[in-house]
Amino acid sequence: MAGAPDRPRIEFWFDFASTYSYPAAMRVADVAAMQDVEIAWRPFLLGPIFGDLGWLTSPFNLQPAKGAYMWRDLARICAELKLPFMRPDPFPQNGLAAARVATSLPDDGKRAAFGCAVYRAEFGEGATISDNDVLVGILESLGQDPTRVLAEASGQAVKDALRQTTDQAREAGIFGAPTWRTEDGEIFWGNDRLEDAIRWAQQAR
Amino acid sequence: MAGAPDRPRIEFWFDFASTYSYPAAMRVADVAAMQDVEIAWRPFLLGPIFGDLGWLTSPFNLQPAKGAYMWRDLARICAELKLPFMRPDPFPQNGLAAARVATSLPDDGKRAAFGCAVYRAEFGEGATISDNDVLVGILESLGQDPTRVLAEASGQAVKDALRQTTDQAREAGIFGAPTWRTEDGEIFWGNDRLEDAIRWAQQAR
Repeated sequence: MAGAPDRPRIEFWFDFASTYSYPAAMRVADVAAMQDVEIAWRPFLLGPIFGDLGWLTSPFNLQPAKGAYMWRDLARICAELKLPFMRPDPFPQNGLAAARVATSLPDDGKRAAFGCAVYRAEFGEGATISDNDVLVGILESLGQDPTRVLAEASGQAVKDALRQTTDQAREAGIFGAPTWRTEDGEIFWGNDRLEDAIRWAQQAR
Repeated sequence: MAGAPDRPRIEFWFDFASTYSYPAAMRVADVAAMQDVEIAWRPFLLGPIFGDLGWLTSPFNLQPAKGAYMWRDLARICAELKLPFMRPDPFPQNGLAAARVATSLPDDGKRAAFGCAVYRAEFGEGATISDNDVLVGILESLGQDPTRVLAEASGQAVKDALRQTTDQAREAGIFGAPTWRTEDGEIFWGNDRLEDAIRWAQQAR
């Protein structure tokens, strides 16, 4: 059934500052392959959506107890998945440049590969993903031409596309990341809800 | 192995205004029994912990998109678990009186039975759990003497015990409900993390 045109399609809405999007990004391809589900990678920005609430930083910084829990929980989850983990400093990272690159790349595997590489650099190695050199290194490691990709990513068309995706997220009721969205518009929030989204998508067909 | 004195013990920290604590309460006994885990029911109040953050109501009211998602998600979860679901109005309910009753009841099955009955009334039937008649009806249905139980629950010893439990929650880093806490102090937040807490508790032994 793999590759069948009629298999369910689930949107993976992610923000590069989002901590739980790291394990989500790293495991989604395998889970989706095992379940014959197609994943559409949708980079967006949580910052403007948090800004609607008057928040100027991550809720994990605004709620210290929740933040302390999240870092512990993320370490546990990464250990379980055998993923490297290093807490980035500062947190949250500015993911704007990376989100523009992700937006500019086609969603035919290149966007997913770039997304995973960014998350691994950020939360696996503690790299600063707003640093141009970091993005250049990631693009080079993926066999892309950094100069060409970064030029396109900083163009007006990509800026507009990312803004539009963020507006779509808001309209879809998305308030956090990762969020999984099925073809019938149901959303499931959180790394640990991927399997629920898949089950929903399979039952809806 | 069931009933063995050395089986893992997991604390179930719940607040009666907490929506996701409803499915958690209704399913925890079966899940724990299947996994040979003992559950300790720990009623506490989230209100003072939210108050530390300056919040005067539920975060689901403070964040409308998150609130809309939560109600939809709760309905889906209840449908999956074949639990009745009715959204209480107003939300959040004032769970103080019910939390005092739960605190006063011994944790030998009576507290769990009362807890499940309160959650079912609140989120299954839309009842107002701060209403004394509702609590009387629940206690009667459980074969308890409402007058005696409610008198004890409104005594200073129970008030102090509930305040102490809430302080313990804060000290344990608990910031939401339901929260599962293992004997080695690990916490797992959310209905959907019960299985992770159980796995952790089993591996820790």
